Amino acid sequence: MRIDEARFREDFEELAAIGATPEGGVNRPSLGDAHLAARAWFLERAQAYGLETRVDAAGNHSAVLPADGPTLLLGSHLDSVPEGGRYDGALGVVAALHVLVALRGTELPCALEAIDFTDEEGTLVGLLGSEALAGALRAEALLSPRGGRDALLAGLARAGLREDELAGASRDPTTFAGYLELHIEQGPRLERDGAQIGIVTAIVGSRSLVFGFRGVSGHAGTTPMDGRRDAGLAAAAFAVAANTLVVQDFPGCVATVGEMRLEPGGFNVIPDSARVSIEFRSPETAQLDALETALRRQAGEAAERYALDVDATVVGRWEPAALDPGVRGAIARAAAELGLAAIELPSGAGHDAQALAAVTPSGMIFVPSAGGVSHQPMEHTSWQACVDGANTLLHATLELCAVYAARGA
Amino acid sequence: MRIDEARFREDFEELAAIGATPEGGVNRPSLGDAHLAARAWFLERAQAYGLETRVDAAGNHSAVLPADGPTLLLGSHLDSVPEGGRYDGALGVVAALHVLVALRGTELPCALEAIDFTDEEGTLVGLLGSEALAGALRAEALLSPRGGRDALLAGLARAGLREDELAGASRDPTTFAGYLELHIEQGPRLERDGAQIGIVTAIVGSRSLVFGFRGVSGHAGTTPMDGRRDAGLAAAAFAVAANTLVVQDFPGCVATVGEMRLEPGGFNVIPDSARVSIEFRSPETAQLDALETALRRQAGEAAERYALDVDATVVGRWEPAALDPGVRGAIARAAAELGLAAIELPSGAGHDAQALAAVTPSGMIFVPSAGGVSHQPMEHTSWQACVDGANTLLHATLELCAVYAARGA
Repeated sequence: MRIDEARFREDFEELAAIGATPEGGVNRPSLGDAHLAARAWFLERAQAYGLETRVDAAGNHSAVLPADGPTLLLGSHLDSVPEGGRYDGALGVVAALHVLVALRGTELPCALEAIDFTDEEGTLVGLLGSEALAGALRAEALLSPRGGRDALLAGLARAGLREDELAGASRDPTTFAGYLELHIEQGPRLERDGAQIGIVTAIVGSRSLVFGFRGVSGHAGTTPMDGRRDAGLAAAAFAVAANTLVVQDFPGCVATVGEMRLEPGGFNVIPDSARVSIEFRSPETAQLDALETALRRQAGEAAERYALDVDATVVGRWEPAALDPGVRGAIARAAAELGLAAIELPSGAGHDAQALAAVTPSGMIFVPSAGGVSHQPMEHTSWQACVDGANTLLHATLELCAVYAARGA
Repeated sequence: MRIDEARFREDFEELAAIGATPEGGVNRPSLGDAHLAARAWFLERAQAYGLETRVDAAGNHSAVLPADGPTLLLGSHLDSVPEGGRYDGALGVVAALHVLVALRGTELPCALEAIDFTDEEGTLVGLLGSEALAGALRAEALLSPRGGRDALLAGLARAGLREDELAGASRDPTTFAGYLELHIEQGPRLERDGAQIGIVTAIVGSRSLVFGFRGVSGHAGTTPMDGRRDAGLAAAAFAVAANTLVVQDFPGCVATVGEMRLEPGGFNVIPDSARVSIEFRSPETAQLDALETALRRQAGEAAERYALDVDATVVGRWEPAALDPGVRGAIARAAAELGLAAIELPSGAGHDAQALAAVTPSGMIFVPSAGGVSHQPMEHTSWQACVDGANTLLHATLELCAVYAARGA
């Protein structure tokens, strides 16, 4: 059994045109117009294939193939980072849809649900939809979201969602048979090892913090260099020091300053405010704790050097997650049936599977990313690899259904 | 003879309410709505006092007291830096208006013109109106303005100005009797020395550059630290190094990074582009040249360290200007007549007088800035100092008229 490759490709390319950028990527930040258009397209395609559809209180969009049994969720996301690539998330959603299309008319012991989770990338909150569904949405995550409260409220309003109803998307875990997600690797391992399929063992944890430095504004011409309390300078010094810290003292971790905002932001005004957005990741919670402590200390030192104040706000916190050995076995058998070379590897990127792993046996299938490139327009996965991934998702679905049926028998 | 203190204050406070910010300052970036409202208010006030008004092709707004002789210009500006103070520029314009008001009916050998110059602060170009009037507006300044082309074109459109007509504001220098400007000091010298009036000897030169670092974007979780070409990191390293360079090797100079923009600007994307806005000043052209060379070298080194490309665009270039000894003498006599303690000092800030000094004998009067603070809402000059400054402007005007009359006789 195989997915319908021609229709799969047609759908994938139609989707890639929504929010397409001149560089060949997509710009579909969560709950922006392009993202909402992509979600509407998903429901429309599912209905055209004769599938049931639903949208929950957290805005998660689903296509459903009903059956008399618990639900095996096949998910990913249609939002992108700003100026991102066309494969990240989108591949998993379109492949999940085509698994359901391929299995229409087949009698299964599990219902299948292809689900597009809200705000995976964290333009607003991060894993918003999957954590809501898993009953793990924290109030603080909504109160100090990565993208700021204003952007979150505007996005929810655009999507017709209510903040006080988001948690209502939570579902009883006993109604789940498991969770499967196909995704591009976003790293170089599969390509380097010549493997076609990656079976994810664990997902790194990550934290997002905003450091706010507050100094004193002033005239850029008349304020002597030794009389300045320049918030921008402290922010720049912190960004450099944070990089050195991670490279030297935290092997296996990564840290990224993705944004720095200096205010008021003129040529001839010393900045009195600088906000630094930093994200860091590790497979170990203890290492995340240690790195957070070290970064806070460094920010304090930078502030002290320039006689400033600094505060830190945690705007994202996702724990490392191990994926289920049984589901990993099902993926391995699926790849073997299809004659695809598979290896096990951890994920350096965060995924909705992190949220699902806490409530149901979960697994992830990776396909190679050319050059390990992701989160940019040049992100690329060969078409054959996309098809291999979708068929592995299909066969892993059948394997899990078989396991479920055997267990039920 | 004195200016009408009550009306002067009433006008000054009315003006300070236009674009007022909650912190007590004003936000009137050049050719924005608040700035245009302030300019309209200025013409209206001038007309209410029975003065003639004119607006030239560069948008400079004038109130005129005609006479049979050349024009003594009394100028400053009504635009502010973003989130600036209420005294910078505004004091000089309102005082100039009240000098004309005080001298209505007095027979003078010079026409007087209170002039509000367009875009002194450089939200768009910097000294745009005064350079146009002095015939010194450079085409490159319009093509790569500090605020970007889009902002410039939008501002001109809002003000009803045409880019190809701006240079038409140029006037024949032989029609000028001179230029006088009252301004807050924006530095701590007068306060420290207990002086009431500053007589400016020279104005520092300044340059504004934008350094653009270009790296490679990528996923913040999956791209190893040693495989990154992070444009934001290079920009931060450059900002820190530039500060150290100026402090250590260029005494008497100042340099400020007022803005850093990282793109695409998400938590989980390595920035592939970073733009750093830097401005530096010196009283010596040779030192400006040497500092520019050193900064370009540093930017190149930062780019090399992180395997990036970098380019530099000069978006502002103002030469140091010496002010006229004859005008300085007239200001000194005016202060003495009023019993005010005056000292001579250079200006670390740029002013429209820089442009005028190239075409007509020019001078500047400073009044103390509390704590030397400027370009921020807390900027403050005591009301008595404002009045002293306006009366010094009035008497210096009379002194220059007397000099002119004596020379003509």
